[in-house]
Amino acid sequence: MKLGVFERDGEPHVGRIEGDVVVDLGPGTSVLDVAEGQSLGHGPEVRVADVQWVLPFPVADYVDFYASRAHVENMGRILRPGTEPLPAAWLHLPIGYHGRAGTVVVSGTDVRRPHGQRRAGDFGPSQKLDFELELGFVIGKPSEGPVPVERAFDHVFGAVLVNDWSARDIQAFEYVPLGPFLGKSFATSISAHVTTPDELTRVPGEPQDPEPLPHLRTEPFVFDLPLEVELNGEVISGTNARNLYWNVAQQIAHLTSNGAALRAGDLLASGTISGPGGRERGSLIELTWNEGPFLADGDEVVLRGAPLGEVRGRIVP
Amino acid sequence: MKLGVFERDGEPHVGRIEGDVVVDLGPGTSVLDVAEGQSLGHGPEVRVADVQWVLPFPVADYVDFYASRAHVENMGRILRPGTEPLPAAWLHLPIGYHGRAGTVVVSGTDVRRPHGQRRAGDFGPSQKLDFELELGFVIGKPSEGPVPVERAFDHVFGAVLVNDWSARDIQAFEYVPLGPFLGKSFATSISAHVTTPDELTRVPGEPQDPEPLPHLRTEPFVFDLPLEVELNGEVISGTNARNLYWNVAQQIAHLTSNGAALRAGDLLASGTISGPGGRERGSLIELTWNEGPFLADGDEVVLRGAPLGEVRGRIVP
Repeated sequence: MKLGVFERDGEPHVGRIEGDVVVDLGPGTSVLDVAEGQSLGHGPEVRVADVQWVLPFPVADYVDFYASRAHVENMGRILRPGTEPLPAAWLHLPIGYHGRAGTVVVSGTDVRRPHGQRRAGDFGPSQKLDFELELGFVIGKPSEGPVPVERAFDHVFGAVLVNDWSARDIQAFEYVPLGPFLGKSFATSISAHVTTPDELTRVPGEPQDPEPLPHLRTEPFVFDLPLEVELNGEVISGTNARNLYWNVAQQIAHLTSNGAALRAGDLLASGTISGPGGRERGSLIELTWNEGPFLADGDEVVLRGAPLGEVRGRIVP
Repeated sequence: MKLGVFERDGEPHVGRIEGDVVVDLGPGTSVLDVAEGQSLGHGPEVRVADVQWVLPFPVADYVDFYASRAHVENMGRILRPGTEPLPAAWLHLPIGYHGRAGTVVVSGTDVRRPHGQRRAGDFGPSQKLDFELELGFVIGKPSEGPVPVERAFDHVFGAVLVNDWSARDIQAFEYVPLGPFLGKSFATSISAHVTTPDELTRVPGEPQDPEPLPHLRTEPFVFDLPLEVELNGEVISGTNARNLYWNVAQQIAHLTSNGAALRAGDLLASGTISGPGGRERGSLIELTWNEGPFLADGDEVVLRGAPLGEVRGRIVP
């Protein structure tokens, strides 16, 4: 099932996408209402092409992980050459951090080039604006306290594509010791549709070594989702969500292992997904090995992957 | 004006505290409704002692800064001895990161000792559980795009006391390179009352050197708020919100300088407030120079500071 929220006569409605048409399920601001068993009815159909989508759910907390090994190794080699590319904790837990929920926007929203300090005393428009190709999961079922890894996926309502736009210069100057902040918080785009898990192809993952601790230990699984990046109409990268080391069940178990609650609407993104090959990288910093060019004003980035659809955004000055 | 939300006949009501009584302003879940000019009426009075407070507003995004120079220098000396204690960017911008909005709780809520990885392969209850004495500001007036520093304080609805509980061992293992995550996300306590700015004493701050960039440049100001930490009935530390280098207007200007939106309910905390003296430190890691003892099960921490009231929490296993 693919669900979204669209404007109809100035009012948000929840819709189910079926091919070229949208079945209007009635007024609502969140696709998660469908999960909660609210009777949304079954209304008339509209053509997808005629629909103006808005954010499919109000984002509660947004967490961005760092779960693709090839991406993390690339970043280590680019930013800290000559040192071990994997952070010390990386094989022991799914590293992640909180992002800004209030600046998550729907596919199609223009992205204004952020300003920031690029070096000490040098404030201006980012000169290293980048995309990040990610897979996101939306929590439908809340929890209090630790969620066992084997039941963690039951809390997932569905999946979205994520473009976690990044200003590499702003981030490089600010991130020690508390992590990314303004280099990320200006915008994060998600696909207009949330796709429920029954439409995703789950396959066994690679064995994990060292074996995770018991609360993170599960039969390794990943999703077979081919993904591609299109820049100004040209496909510049192709990868697959199989290239994730930590899966979303492990991320949920980790996130809640300290007792943190989950809320409906929490968004968990994978981190940039890269594969081992030179054209399988999910960001420009990796594709150009930090040489650029980065994104120019007017550039349009489209991330695609069936059955999740696309997430699209254009850079404006 | 001091405002809170309390339970009355199983329903949340907004109340204004006047000495020993609470004026019931009518049903509501957020003190911010008072700012928005909603007519809440003027109902009967109840005794403060009879009232059960709940969270005074729904937290939108939660940002934690790192704005007290003595605290940052202490942490540098403790954790990275022999190196420059101030991070390279610290004098150039107010360093901060996003926390978990969904685990902000009201004063009086018990805090369950978090579990986590204390070292590689070693999962269990935190052995270095700590408090952090902080000042928080709540956004009342939203914004789109950069907020000029001279108008930034207009977006503030009021102030709260914050205890940003920290598991030092969990944080130390996880925080490279993306910053604190599970070491912080289990709980953050705030005072039950939001105090409006007219009750705060604003005084000139120390000159800032180097002079901040134009978008962060303002007549330096701080708030003269004496603060103290009580552990199991004994005052163990006394400091003042004057010990903040970056003020909230600069934090708002910085936070929005990349175009990030502000929402009503955004919570901006100062980071731990410490003064130069050995008994002016806002955390146990500083007070004991990382030797401990840290918090034991059953310990009760109360942070106090007129006119903000108190924030109280007890550790449970």
